[in-house]
Amino acid sequence: MLKLALLGCGRIGQVHARSISQLADKARLVAVADAYEPAAQELAAASGAEMRSSAQIMQSDDVDAIIVGTPTDTHYQLIHDAAAAGKAIFCEKPIDMSAERIRDCIVAVKKANVAFLAAFNRRFDPNFSDIQARIAAGEIGDVELITILSRDPAPPPISYIKSSGGLFRDMMIHDFDMARFLLGEEVTSIFAVGSSLVDPEIGAAGDIDTAAVTLSTASGKICQISNSRRASYGYDQRLEVHGSKGMLRAENTLKNGVEVATQNGFQKAPAQHFFLERYEEAYRLEMAHFIDALNSGQTPSPSASDGLQAQLLADAAAQSLATGLPVRLANDPA
Amino acid sequence: MLKLALLGCGRIGQVHARSISQLADKARLVAVADAYEPAAQELAAASGAEMRSSAQIMQSDDVDAIIVGTPTDTHYQLIHDAAAAGKAIFCEKPIDMSAERIRDCIVAVKKANVAFLAAFNRRFDPNFSDIQARIAAGEIGDVELITILSRDPAPPPISYIKSSGGLFRDMMIHDFDMARFLLGEEVTSIFAVGSSLVDPEIGAAGDIDTAAVTLSTASGKICQISNSRRASYGYDQRLEVHGSKGMLRAENTLKNGVEVATQNGFQKAPAQHFFLERYEEAYRLEMAHFIDALNSGQTPSPSASDGLQAQLLADAAAQSLATGLPVRLANDPA
Amino acid sequence: MLKLALLGCGRIGQVHARSISQLADKARLVAVADAYEPAAQELAAASGAEMRSSAQIMQSDDVDAIIVGTPTDTHYQLIHDAAAAGKAIFCEKPIDMSAERIRDCIVAVKKANVAFLAAFNRRFDPNFSDIQARIAAGEIGDVELITILSRDPAPPPISYIKSSGGLFRDMMIHDFDMARFLLGEEVTSIFAVGSSLVDPEIGAAGDIDTAAVTLSTASGKICQISNSRRASYGYDQRLEVHGSKGMLRAENTLKNGVEVATQNGFQKAPAQHFFLERYEEAYRLEMAHFIDALNSGQTPSPSASDGLQAQLLADAAAQSLATGLPVRLANDPA
Amino acid sequence: MLKLALLGCGRIGQVHARSISQLADKARLVAVADAYEPAAQELAAASGAEMRSSAQIMQSDDVDAIIVGTPTDTHYQLIHDAAAAGKAIFCEKPIDMSAERIRDCIVAVKKANVAFLAAFNRRFDPNFSDIQARIAAGEIGDVELITILSRDPAPPPISYIKSSGGLFRDMMIHDFDMARFLLGEEVTSIFAVGSSLVDPEIGAAGDIDTAAVTLSTASGKICQISNSRRASYGYDQRLEVHGSKGMLRAENTLKNGVEVATQNGFQKAPAQHFFLERYEEAYRLEMAHFIDALNSGQTPSPSASDGLQAQLLADAAAQSLATGLPVRLANDPA
Repeated sequence: MLKLALLGCGRIGQVHARSISQLADKARLVAVADAYEPAAQELAAASGAEMRSSAQIMQSDDVDAIIVGTPTDTHYQLIHDAAAAGKAIFCEKPIDMSAERIRDCIVAVKKANVAFLAAFNRRFDPNFSDIQARIAAGEIGDVELITILSRDPAPPPISYIKSSGGLFRDMMIHDFDMARFLLGEEVTSIFAVGSSLVDPEIGAAGDIDTAAVTLSTASGKICQISNSRRASYGYDQRLEVHGSKGMLRAENTLKNGVEVATQNGFQKAPAQHFFLERYEEAYRLEMAHFIDALNSGQTPSPSASDGLQAQLLADAAAQSLATGLPVRLANDPA
Repeated sequence: MLKLALLGCGRIGQVHARSISQLADKARLVAVADAYEPAAQELAAASGAEMRSSAQIMQSDDVDAIIVGTPTDTHYQLIHDAAAAGKAIFCEKPIDMSAERIRDCIVAVKKANVAFLAAFNRRFDPNFSDIQARIAAGEIGDVELITILSRDPAPPPISYIKSSGGLFRDMMIHDFDMARFLLGEEVTSIFAVGSSLVDPEIGAAGDIDTAAVTLSTASGKICQISNSRRASYGYDQRLEVHGSKGMLRAENTLKNGVEVATQNGFQKAPAQHFFLERYEEAYRLEMAHFIDALNSGQTPSPSASDGLQAQLLADAAAQSLATGLPVRLANDPA
Repeated sequence: MLKLALLGCGRIGQVHARSISQLADKARLVAVADAYEPAAQELAAASGAEMRSSAQIMQSDDVDAIIVGTPTDTHYQLIHDAAAAGKAIFCEKPIDMSAERIRDCIVAVKKANVAFLAAFNRRFDPNFSDIQARIAAGEIGDVELITILSRDPAPPPISYIKSSGGLFRDMMIHDFDMARFLLGEEVTSIFAVGSSLVDPEIGAAGDIDTAAVTLSTASGKICQISNSRRASYGYDQRLEVHGSKGMLRAENTLKNGVEVATQNGFQKAPAQHFFLERYEEAYRLEMAHFIDALNSGQTPSPSASDGLQAQLLADAAAQSLATGLPVRLANDPA
Repeated sequence: MLKLALLGCGRIGQVHARSISQLADKARLVAVADAYEPAAQELAAASGAEMRSSAQIMQSDDVDAIIVGTPTDTHYQLIHDAAAAGKAIFCEKPIDMSAERIRDCIVAVKKANVAFLAAFNRRFDPNFSDIQARIAAGEIGDVELITILSRDPAPPPISYIKSSGGLFRDMMIHDFDMARFLLGEEVTSIFAVGSSLVDPEIGAAGDIDTAAVTLSTASGKICQISNSRRASYGYDQRLEVHGSKGMLRAENTLKNGVEVATQNGFQKAPAQHFFLERYEEAYRLEMAHFIDALNSGQTPSPSASDGLQAQLLADAAAQSLATGLPVRLANDPA
């Protein structure tokens, strides 16, 4: 029975608390903390966990692992504290906005020899994990071409955009991790283009809302990613992997399975709109994986190094966009 | 090189003439006839065939086979004439409205020992023939349950309805033949219900426009058919066959393959509206089968007996509707 | 905050307990009971409810409503007891195997003036409830033809079959309720055929495993239902409603959304296999509806009378199968 | 009644002859020519056209328009000859391998003031032309992101590869034209990556078999194209256009519409394998457009300038691949 503490009781923290309650036979949420005390109080009441301060949690003997769901700029210190306290760490993405600081975190985690999971939830989506498993089983031979299409239903508030680190670090970072997950080989070159077509305010804020990126690997595999901050038909999350023996793809998850036939044709429901709904099961499976790994002494995945690599790709994409030139990657295995 | 003559230059006759022109390496349309001479003239000009009278065609030495595409009430005499003249016969469905008279035709055809094809075009549709071939190959084990859904885009004119012989003989007869084609076993019992929901004039004319029929066989196989004279979304032609090892089904053929995604969801085109468009390839393959069979000395299929059995099912359905009771069938193998 | 007690801690009881735990802001499971004490103990521990006897529950002041998830032959007495005790009742289907005894229950419930829900879970499936709502909104005009296809992945043990009341009362009863839900009009005539094709032992036990039923209403609406106890490709649950202006249909829910393309074609996952997985959300929404109705003073639905009508249809189907004749229904509104 | 002559009686010439025969009410194939006389004889016999030499055709008064279906390196002279003779020209793609020489052809055509169609058949595919029409009608607002996926079922012979001009000029040129057709705006920048993953002999011949290209326009629209010379599941031809109000996409055309359900899931047929089958209707509609345009005095489309622009994109892609850098385009409107 793993004992967990949660730092950060916002939207994603609540998702994790709910996941843990559904894994009651394997783990228990012991404590919760939030800089905004009423949020911690409310989640404590709903989950049956104790409200404690972050500092208290670091020193709690009844806590085996810490879930870091606080704002990104606090991750660095909390990871160092938790590692020093010998706690396993489940950290929301991104680990940090600076690759240098992520490297520091990796050093601290390695030194303390604690388990660490970088929470790229999409790897646990039943469709995407099935595709990865089929690739690993050789079902489509060698991977040759990957296409990832990722579009948000609507842009976030402009205030969010301004502090987001930009589309590549905030949104496409998920697709960079997915590309690495499916390519099975490090990216050696990246080229990015981007525009502000959805909302001129996004462009005025120095960001883009529409982007396309090309990744290449040493052996010649290619991955194309495109993002848009807007999709009238819902949260658009598709990908396909073309290999030497076949192709695997995942279509969108629709709001329901009803089809309406009229003189206009055959109409199905829009895609699910909200990411928490779309990836509800992925969040649950991600937490189950973390708990199972710790309970069985396995290493959870994706690792802090995976977190670093995705961030390096996002940085390189931003550099490519700024220079108009492709960027070669060193692929520092950290 | 098979030499063909066409009796009846209406809509379906023109389809057959076009099919023959696309099979120019195997067959040639030598002569056409129509009671309405301008129709014959026009098709003669378009196809390069000679205009002749029916009587002339029966006596033409340069005609191997005759396509009967004239009104149903003329079939009986033309079949007898063609058989007497030793010509192979391709006869549009229904062979005749009276099962007794169909039996007479079968006798005449057998006595003359001429080839005969009852033109149930749907057996040649690439989807439906593939399903039948897969059943025959044992791909889904033993057939257990068949569902046939057949809906016209819109009802025919009331004048047509009045002389049509009723929905079972005019429309569902195709589904009765399809059921027999896929069941691989004769029907022993039939139960029919029907309503006039689409157009009260159809009810006033003594017919129905909405119907459902249940067929059973001696070994316990079951087939459900439903028909409607109206479908806002196009010509609806679907079926599925459930067997001990799996299920086969054919969806509608849509007008095109475009999907439009908007806030209302994902919309595909309506089904193809017109039966000549929907079954264009079936008509061509049906004619190719007839020609290939004659050229190679094989027996074409479906046979006159198949035509009789479908008619007997339509008669029994009408009887079931009239009495409100299921009807047992003798399954006279004719 | 509604206080609930659960009678019966088996598979379906556990589902209901889990649903209630997810509705913690609206209701609380106070007590559980089971004739087999360890089952009650285990669910009490997992849910935080107290273990009590049925008799204690009936007399508990802290219980507003009772969920009856015990074997069918105990429902009658428990409904009478709960009604006498003034408790609202959520009763698993079927209410009873005898229509006469269901009528007794209805009388007892009416006399005690307690709320009652007959747990036809499929009405709460998001696809099917959406279809019903669209019909009610007039989206496809008048309902004309309904097709319901329902196939289990595999037959239950023969021991279960023997005490099940037969396919119509055990399996198709869900489809009878669904037909009534969607037709919006009582059934006036029913005709049934059935065979034992899946397992000869089922036939030897006097039951069927493959069946087709036709329902008609006074205004001429038609519904075709077919059932099989076996489907190699999973739990097959589809339906479509054809109306004067269009058609609504719900396809199967597949295990995941991955498509594999190889030289054999494009392959999607099988349908979800297990009914508790397929209808997981329906069970949750059903319980939410019951709780919301009681909390707001509304009448929950489907009613005990709905339970009776479905049972009467199952009885009539059995009679039709036995006699080979259609059966007319009185449609006693109970 | 337009009078046509066909230069080149190979595979594509035969397709055009067949198309013309199906447009018999509008046009007639008067003459055919081929350097290999038996090919011309055979097609003359099949089509009813006369066999003539190219030179004779240029001087034939009974020829209004010339279809150029000969090897690419002969196009230049034939276009000049036909233009000089005042004949309208339907020219297979590519017009020429050299952009400079295409410019010469454009000058010759303009000077002679003859109609010219560059035969990018895919613009006439019913799916793709419908998508373009919907974009033009504003159905999805402003175009923002286009994804084109194009994969051949299997690579051509290595001898063909060697003289093909390379993947960009031989295969992706269709996608470049499609991108321009759908973007509605000229491409200003292009970036290409490519690998030899399918067959090492292709790499040894200096070509690639797997490629991805990114196109950008002045207003910030983006198009991603990917190509592979191999697809186990058939001829893969898909595209989607994402706009400010929605998304349009076209899926593959499958061999038939049958679905097989077994314990492995739900399987549909592979995509049609052969390009002449896949684009059969596109070829027919392309010819119909050319004939209709000439008969009505309209300008056929796509133009010679469209042919030049696609070639310039292919050249730029090859340059980008060779240099590893994006290439800016002047967009000479020729």
